[in-house]
Amino acid sequence: MVGDAGAPRSVTSRALAVLAAFDEAHSRLTLSQIARRAGLALTTTHRLLGELTAWQALERRDDGSYVIGRRLWHLGLLAPVQLELRQAALPYLQDLYDATRENVQLAVREAAHALYVERLSGRASVPIRTRVGVHLPLHATGVGKVLLAHAPDELVDAVLADLAPVTTHTVTDPVRLRRELGDVRRRGYATTAHEMTLGTCSVAAPVTDPGGQVVAAISLVTTASRPDLAQLAPAVRVAARAVTRRLASARP
Amino acid sequence: MVGDAGAPRSVTSRALAVLAAFDEAHSRLTLSQIARRAGLALTTTHRLLGELTAWQALERRDDGSYVIGRRLWHLGLLAPVQLELRQAALPYLQDLYDATRENVQLAVREAAHALYVERLSGRASVPIRTRVGVHLPLHATGVGKVLLAHAPDELVDAVLADLAPVTTHTVTDPVRLRRELGDVRRRGYATTAHEMTLGTCSVAAPVTDPGGQVVAAISLVTTASRPDLAQLAPAVRVAARAVTRRLASARP
Repeated sequence: MVGDAGAPRSVTSRALAVLAAFDEAHSRLTLSQIARRAGLALTTTHRLLGELTAWQALERRDDGSYVIGRRLWHLGLLAPVQLELRQAALPYLQDLYDATRENVQLAVREAAHALYVERLSGRASVPIRTRVGVHLPLHATGVGKVLLAHAPDELVDAVLADLAPVTTHTVTDPVRLRRELGDVRRRGYATTAHEMTLGTCSVAAPVTDPGGQVVAAISLVTTASRPDLAQLAPAVRVAARAVTRRLASARP
Repeated sequence: MVGDAGAPRSVTSRALAVLAAFDEAHSRLTLSQIARRAGLALTTTHRLLGELTAWQALERRDDGSYVIGRRLWHLGLLAPVQLELRQAALPYLQDLYDATRENVQLAVREAAHALYVERLSGRASVPIRTRVGVHLPLHATGVGKVLLAHAPDELVDAVLADLAPVTTHTVTDPVRLRRELGDVRRRGYATTAHEMTLGTCSVAAPVTDPGGQVVAAISLVTTASRPDLAQLAPAVRVAARAVTRRLASARP
């Protein structure tokens, strides 16, 4: 590709395309990698990188590669998901961690995935795959089942039509998962066992906004050898309710 | 102001000016507020907001105001301060919290301020003023004294020339603070008492990158009535050293 690819694009959209070249798997990129991923000419990319670096949206490392800059990080912290949800939830997540010493997680739904907003874990917690900012499938995680149980019908149908196995224990039968989602709504919590990571199980409960919409889910992830999983459900539900109350009291 | 203010600006810099209208005190803005803060015409601002909203850099709320979007939050999580420093430090911060049940903080220096990257605290921890993304003065905080003790001479001189009191206990005598910074380097930790917030004291220690530069500081903030502050220093230093080791082992 020699010139700028595709239909005429605005300068703003080109600058955003440079930023969009970065993702979880590409957090450190060279000029030519950025140009290729953004579909832009090298000269255009070089000029945009100059402006974005001067503004500290990006940073140039000693080896010549580019990374997301501190200013963009700082700006991102002003997003409601961080400023409102994460701040409101953190003390209660900490309480839940204190009471259990297990992995504690907070996630929201982003399209057909669970997006992890916070995770607390100590030395004694079982190793798991989540990290802040990571997307995991809705049908294979505790938070995901909670979020899916309260998602629009069309989304549920789309997810149930394509249940990819993550482990040999992932629920891939749509009839069984649909029944489980009903159980989640009725009981107020979801569970998983070996479905995302072999050797771990989880219990998750919904966080509701002042309008009654489920906007997030909190989960506890522990070793599958722990026989008292259902006994952890009340603690997770109490923490999720506490965040729900906090969101209601913070309403402007 | 009728048209776009100031010297000719590139389209990219105008889009960035729209983003720069948002900060801690202005996390939710209307079209006209953004135009005014960015120094742009309403029509220009409106067009840029359309592009930035379509990309989810910003989100438009039901009341017509704009907030930072989830996509910018997500992109910001890829910054090294989050992806490398915060991720490397979190387990050790959690260990320090487990051992003490006090506020645990991680900060970096940004110009003449301490920028808080992480904070853990439970119900039992003393209420304090920090939050992730907040800037506090170097001379009035424990992490700030550590970062200042390892800052370039010119920056130390500039900070010492303007020691504003935050409380009646803030150190505002440059001779005394310079002596304290020497103590911090010699002993390996800093302390504060009532200097940022009346009723709290803190102890802080440096985190060093593989090149030997101090890149961050970890602190414990507790009630000033706790008489054993110096006895908490080893725990904070051990945690900071653990993060230093982790950064060294993660070196690519």
